[in-house]
Amino acid sequence: MAIKLSENDLLEKLGRIAKAATRPPRAGSQLRLGIGDDAAVFRPSPGSETVLTCDWFLEGIHFLREAHPPDSIGWKCLARALSDLAAMGATPKCFLLSLAIPPSCTGPWLDGFLNGLRRASRKFHCPLAGGDTTRHERVLLNLTAVGELPAATAVLRSGARVGDYIYVSGRLGEAELGLRLLRKGQRQLSGHINPCLRKHLYPQPRLKLGQRLRERNVATSMMDLSDGLSTDLNRLCAASLVGARLEMGRIPVPHGSDDRIKASNLLNFALHGGDDYELLFTVPRKKANRLPASFEGVTLTRIGEITSGRSIQVTLPDGRKEFLLPAGWDPFRK
Amino acid sequence: MAIKLSENDLLEKLGRIAKAATRPPRAGSQLRLGIGDDAAVFRPSPGSETVLTCDWFLEGIHFLREAHPPDSIGWKCLARALSDLAAMGATPKCFLLSLAIPPSCTGPWLDGFLNGLRRASRKFHCPLAGGDTTRHERVLLNLTAVGELPAATAVLRSGARVGDYIYVSGRLGEAELGLRLLRKGQRQLSGHINPCLRKHLYPQPRLKLGQRLRERNVATSMMDLSDGLSTDLNRLCAASLVGARLEMGRIPVPHGSDDRIKASNLLNFALHGGDDYELLFTVPRKKANRLPASFEGVTLTRIGEITSGRSIQVTLPDGRKEFLLPAGWDPFRK
Repeated sequence: MAIKLSENDLLEKLGRIAKAATRPPRAGSQLRLGIGDDAAVFRPSPGSETVLTCDWFLEGIHFLREAHPPDSIGWKCLARALSDLAAMGATPKCFLLSLAIPPSCTGPWLDGFLNGLRRASRKFHCPLAGGDTTRHERVLLNLTAVGELPAATAVLRSGARVGDYIYVSGRLGEAELGLRLLRKGQRQLSGHINPCLRKHLYPQPRLKLGQRLRERNVATSMMDLSDGLSTDLNRLCAASLVGARLEMGRIPVPHGSDDRIKASNLLNFALHGGDDYELLFTVPRKKANRLPASFEGVTLTRIGEITSGRSIQVTLPDGRKEFLLPAGWDPFRK
Repeated sequence: MAIKLSENDLLEKLGRIAKAATRPPRAGSQLRLGIGDDAAVFRPSPGSETVLTCDWFLEGIHFLREAHPPDSIGWKCLARALSDLAAMGATPKCFLLSLAIPPSCTGPWLDGFLNGLRRASRKFHCPLAGGDTTRHERVLLNLTAVGELPAATAVLRSGARVGDYIYVSGRLGEAELGLRLLRKGQRQLSGHINPCLRKHLYPQPRLKLGQRLRERNVATSMMDLSDGLSTDLNRLCAASLVGARLEMGRIPVPHGSDDRIKASNLLNFALHGGDDYELLFTVPRKKANRLPASFEGVTLTRIGEITSGRSIQVTLPDGRKEFLLPAGWDPFRK
């Protein structure tokens, strides 16, 4: 296909999307200047801190152009970055998108992508503030999300204390299971999209849960589960200089799934599968009773507790104990 | 080369760099939380606005791994993003780096890259706040720069008014000439690095000039010259809904260069060459006398004036007039 689009054309297209994705500019809007200048200008709320995160989303590494619908790629590239804001307890404010695409993707693919992005932008009240566009033989995405929270209230990875209970939101391993269904081409079950596939394609960052945990001062530490429980819990423990003891029987594996999938596989997905974008957090025992069993339809499950050792032990249903080593997603090990 | 580095190892390496690049944390530091958590936390100055920009820097598109020293790639990926902050009149505060590299680049290449990045980070007082790392067959870089300025003082592209004089800092086309020297393998002239090559490899964002123009309220519009004067002046005029008249004889072409390069080529480099990272700005006639002939060793040259037409006309030395169409760097036209 001939290259008909110039960089200016693409920027203009993004500018129109930005306008469509955001409400009409209001006098009180914190986004003072969006796409179209050298940089975006954002007015911080008085007394707040700004939370900043950036995330790769690369064809062939994080998604497959042949398998993933462009609408899902647009949704997910924003949702997964917002999950990092959720993990600090922050509220999204705006985002910057860097987009590199082949000329063949400037037509329907780009429209689909922008449609998914726009839906996520509206859903999570997070307007597009700026970006950079260029040409590349494969689709490359990088997204910077900007959030806010009251000064000195961010929930960090490093705050877990010995004796704290460990919780996760939702069910773990569903996105990994969804990815496997996608690879097998099982995109739909009896006309409806499979829930695990939906979670893989359209993850929901746990923004309100993260904010609530921060506001109530319930969680001592928090992070999002993007690379798998075994990898991410090891990171949380390393940051907090603690260890953990998990009860295998408590870990919320995917349910309602295909009966042909063995229980041991489900447990493996839950321990090591990536892309769930659930929250992992610790709560002091004396505050555990303040935590509801679920929050806005998402279950909150206690899976173990923080220990003084520097390792993570898992107690199997038969009482045996094993060490849990990081075996989640690592791009340098694939 | 076997893959020995995990994502955690690379993050740790970046964390060490971040520590080395920044001064020891001080009580008053605005960067409250850097690398190692889900997101960075930044405390804005009271009464300020935050300026945000992101920039691709991709192997094969923006640099050549065989030709560009890794030290230059590290320096330039930060310097060119900071040039966007300079163009608003902002002061750099911190940056996020997204890095994707092949396993073969995790050794000396990465060390060289981080060395150049660290030097730029120190020079421009802009610490690394966070990032994302992954594996890719080619080196991919994306950099988000965060700056600040007093609320409602950003200098935009859209403020040029009919009759304003048009200025540029420095000499234009030098970086393009430097790139050509690099491609020919002429990296050094008599033991010293050629000034045009140095400008291509180690551009200097005009941060102090941008800040001064904003503080003195001298410039009605401003942007940085990254894609070439013909492309960027067309963008400034489009944003301001104006046109321009340039005097070809006034345009500061590279000097001190190889005599074998024809004058017409030098003018072409100055009009259409990318990567100069000089500032393009407009000044009302009655404020023109406030502008010095140079600022901190960088010449400021009046090259023309803003007109009410929507096109850009160039007056040639023989008095003939031509239209200047955007013919600078456009990744979608290459």
